[in-house]
Amino acid sequence: MNEPTETLTLAELQQLIQRMYSSKDEARGVDGTFMWLMEEVGELAASLREGTPAETAAEFADVLAWLATIANVAGIDLQRAVLEKYGRGCPGCGAMVCACDTAEKP
Amino acid sequence: MNEPTETLTLAELQQLIQRMYSSKDEARGVDGTFMWLMEEVGELAASLREGTPAETAAEFADVLAWLATIANVAGIDLQRAVLEKYGRGCPGCGAMVCACDTAEKP
Repeated sequence: MNEPTETLTLAELQQLIQRMYSSKDEARGVDGTFMWLMEEVGELAASLREGTPAETAAEFADVLAWLATIANVAGIDLQRAVLEKYGRGCPGCGAMVCACDTAEKP
Repeated sequence: MNEPTETLTLAELQQLIQRMYSSKDEARGVDGTFMWLMEEVGELAASLREGTPAETAAEFADVLAWLATIANVAGIDLQRAVLEKYGRGCPGCGAMVCACDTAEKP
């Protein structure tokens, strides 16, 4: 359905969800929103076991959407968060191809 | 630390994690990786309650990293998944600003 060149940055994901749901999200708050995230995480687990690839993809999308919602309510910039923690290498060993001892992080 | 213009698409997130951790991820598989995701989701919950913004941002990054790992192992394209489910409007009502009945999706 989508052109192969269609992209979505983490910032655009947060903006999309902000536009679509912000009035409801603010009323629900972080705690109520976290419950929805957990429900979707459960659905993702079930789909990974027995869903079709299309169903599993949709569950991943839902988890990302609720994660973006919580980040919006909590005022966290997801893109900056990932770039700061992982953008320059593994947080454990610093390498772009992780060389941490598997006993520590299997 | 990062330039304001530095961006990260969902596809780039998956590629970054793929490069950094793929050899370990493939050995661990979806089930073992899901346990790590759950541990990070718990840490995110704790941080939302009592962490600093920087700590909470780092926990969001970890959740996204493990989610990307599972998507990599399961062969799911996160960017395409989000664009297909949310890119053209709310999956419930079809509007870019959700107008679903709050009784259905509060």
